Amino acid sequence: MLRWQRGLPEALHRRAAAASKASSSRTAAGDKATSGGTFTAAFRLPRLSTSTAAASTSASASPSPPTPAGAGQPTPRATTANNNTSSPHGLSSFGGLNPVQRAMASGEPLPRVLSVQSHVVHGYVGNKCAVFPLQVLGLEVDPIYSVQFSNHTGYPLFKGAVFDGEQLRALAAGLEANKLLNHTHLLTGYIGSLSLLEAIADLCAVMKSHSPHLTYVCDPVLGDEGRLYVARELADAYAAHIMPLASVLVPNQFEAETLTGGGAIGSVEAALEACDKLHARGPHTVVITSMSLPSDPDTITLVASTRQPQDAGGRLGGATAMCMRIDRIKAYFTGTGDLFAALLLAWMHHHPGDLALAVEKAVGGLQAVLAETVRHCGAAALVAERTAEVCALRELRLIQCQGQLQDPPIKYRCSPLERRQDGAAAAAAGVGPAAGAAGEVQGQGQEQLAPV
Amino acid sequence: MLRWQRGLPEALHRRAAAASKASSSRTAAGDKATSGGTFTAAFRLPRLSTSTAAASTSASASPSPPTPAGAGQPTPRATTANNNTSSPHGLSSFGGLNPVQRAMASGEPLPRVLSVQSHVVHGYVGNKCAVFPLQVLGLEVDPIYSVQFSNHTGYPLFKGAVFDGEQLRALAAGLEANKLLNHTHLLTGYIGSLSLLEAIADLCAVMKSHSPHLTYVCDPVLGDEGRLYVARELADAYAAHIMPLASVLVPNQFEAETLTGGGAIGSVEAALEACDKLHARGPHTVVITSMSLPSDPDTITLVASTRQPQDAGGRLGGATAMCMRIDRIKAYFTGTGDLFAALLLAWMHHHPGDLALAVEKAVGGLQAVLAETVRHCGAAALVAERTAEVCALRELRLIQCQGQLQDPPIKYRCSPLERRQDGAAAAAAGVGPAAGAAGEVQGQGQEQLAPV
Repeated sequence: MLRWQRGLPEALHRRAAAASKASSSRTAAGDKATSGGTFTAAFRLPRLSTSTAAASTSASASPSPPTPAGAGQPTPRATTANNNTSSPHGLSSFGGLNPVQRAMASGEPLPRVLSVQSHVVHGYVGNKCAVFPLQVLGLEVDPIYSVQFSNHTGYPLFKGAVFDGEQLRALAAGLEANKLLNHTHLLTGYIGSLSLLEAIADLCAVMKSHSPHLTYVCDPVLGDEGRLYVARELADAYAAHIMPLASVLVPNQFEAETLTGGGAIGSVEAALEACDKLHARGPHTVVITSMSLPSDPDTITLVASTRQPQDAGGRLGGATAMCMRIDRIKAYFTGTGDLFAALLLAWMHHHPGDLALAVEKAVGGLQAVLAETVRHCGAAALVAERTAEVCALRELRLIQCQGQLQDPPIKYRCSPLERRQDGAAAAAAGVGPAAGAAGEVQGQGQEQLAPV
Repeated sequence: MLRWQRGLPEALHRRAAAASKASSSRTAAGDKATSGGTFTAAFRLPRLSTSTAAASTSASASPSPPTPAGAGQPTPRATTANNNTSSPHGLSSFGGLNPVQRAMASGEPLPRVLSVQSHVVHGYVGNKCAVFPLQVLGLEVDPIYSVQFSNHTGYPLFKGAVFDGEQLRALAAGLEANKLLNHTHLLTGYIGSLSLLEAIADLCAVMKSHSPHLTYVCDPVLGDEGRLYVARELADAYAAHIMPLASVLVPNQFEAETLTGGGAIGSVEAALEACDKLHARGPHTVVITSMSLPSDPDTITLVASTRQPQDAGGRLGGATAMCMRIDRIKAYFTGTGDLFAALLLAWMHHHPGDLALAVEKAVGGLQAVLAETVRHCGAAALVAERTAEVCALRELRLIQCQGQLQDPPIKYRCSPLERRQDGAAAAAAGVGPAAGAAGEVQGQGQEQLAPV
């Protein structure tokens, strides 16, 4: 080691003198976390109909000219005006400074995200999906781990420990005592216990007392395809206690249905109605990420709605509701929702007032990772058996795609939706399809990526 | 969330059915980890004389021309021949592909590092220092956290949990059962308990059974400036059980003295003698990172020695022993040793057979981070009082410096040392100083960075 001082040794050497708090095991229904314990489980996750679409490099927009690093005057955050064109992805894009590089070169303080998610040693879910992309996109990340597992639980076996709300509270107390609870963002994904969800609600309230403009991006992980992953009381707690705190909500179709009372969302119009119901509970921005609409089985439809004013010069000229259609292919991946939520957070920061562009860049980064992952895993992308080898092949290729995460290729574009006067939505004239179908994709080819 | 499948929910939903292992508190001397517990401590670390020097952008070498990403044929790992010149750091260097970008564009499998170190939610020590730099340098990282603390222990207070050897063994068993123990590298830093050290020794043996060419980079964190951080039995265990497993050892002056039997290392010659003693215990490469030699109090001296053959076309023409002098300034930082070990691992991978260039790039990246950190924290760099505010200001600016980590400015160069026939060392004729002093720095200005 170098001579510069490190912090941990002395502390741990002295830790016998420090108060230790015995861990507790809770057994109440819905709060089954085993504090600090180690356990093993062997089972398979159910087969989910998993859908993705991959991007190919889009056309010929040239990268913006380089800006000298360290130039004297601060560089403003990227405006939408010069980012409306898709840029070629890949390492060659380093030829110009993207918004991330410009932001880092500006000398302005970086945003700081407290991200409460799981940790897996090998592979990518939870914070392993969120932290690195946020960092390469120029955000400071303070990760709190809700579990430490050897690998994600889709593998034949995993081992590790689950942490509970008390441990989160202890970490938060340490941060607060040192005046480190000064975050611009809170990000949460899967939360396994009521104890942890309650602790997050309390933490969010404390964070808002320190940072009134805190943005809480919440991925309300409840289930998928008609089935709850979590205890019903957890879903109820999300609706009652978390949604009023959330700024940005990123549910899937089933989660949006669950949080709005269970009615099926079968059209873009219904999705926007659901967004309005969700807005009424708290979040100023809602992105329903992956709808499967009866009218369009080969497409994933995304609907986004915001109550924040949008830039007139932005991608959609100030529209506050939009949809995107993404080609569906069947493939199995893990962690894509976690990655999308992190990317959305980052791009909403870089492009405030232009939700459409933020969504397009988040989807673009995700699609780039999926394309590289599909390319790498070959036939394993479609194998239903979840052997360890297959799971390992399907792990997201985040490290390989860091250039594309910073400068995402944009294949899919948002289309504006008009809100109806009665509060529901209609597709905007001229670009929208018939009611019940998703919006058109503008100006991009719809290449179907072969999954093998 | 998106529709693609995630792994954790079902597992956690079912976790009540899984066996849980009660945490145990150990009280044996030197093994004071409180398994899974939460504790609080409030104290100050002693003032250490902390030294650093910062780099300024070096001269005008032009970046190498870009290589098309995704080109059909694999790109070989960077050879030393085209990396012997320092390149301008900063975002403008994105104009050419650096060795990292070339490696990622090559399509070859990335190396995979298992890194066992601490986790702090806020700030940078342990794995928070190691994981992100390794990732931006194009390595896959599987981090195992030995603790989860709110912040490093130099702050007035910290909270969190310490994990023990049993938890490491459980995670390793999960990885092995899924055939995921296929790493190219093992990296360890501060290890707080004998339990954990023993588990790491066992883990390393298992890893070598799966990967005979495993490179184990060990930072034997024992103490500094004449004082042990850890229990004596831990130091003994390093010497007896860890050093025979280690490939690359990165001790500081005190640690090298401790591991070689306690004799003072007061000269470059003595340092190379110490390296030879350490080689005899196992590591093929030893880098003594930060010596303070009586003959040169304003300089930090680094001495590196390897028994691996070095490229004749490399930085030092095949020399296997070298030293570097770095300007000393007084400043307080935390985590610099952890960062250096990670950077050295990465650059030794990218430049096999050219230890000098790897050292120069690792030091260059570290110096870039320190320069940016000093620039940011201003007068707090020299304040002895460790208030929370001061500690927070001094946190390393890793995210801001990711461009420089990938393409480090090189200010300090290695000079070759000749090994004496009796096994000790002498400075190479023509570049070496008188015996007892450090080697000259070649071709670089020696700017003293003002710490405020």
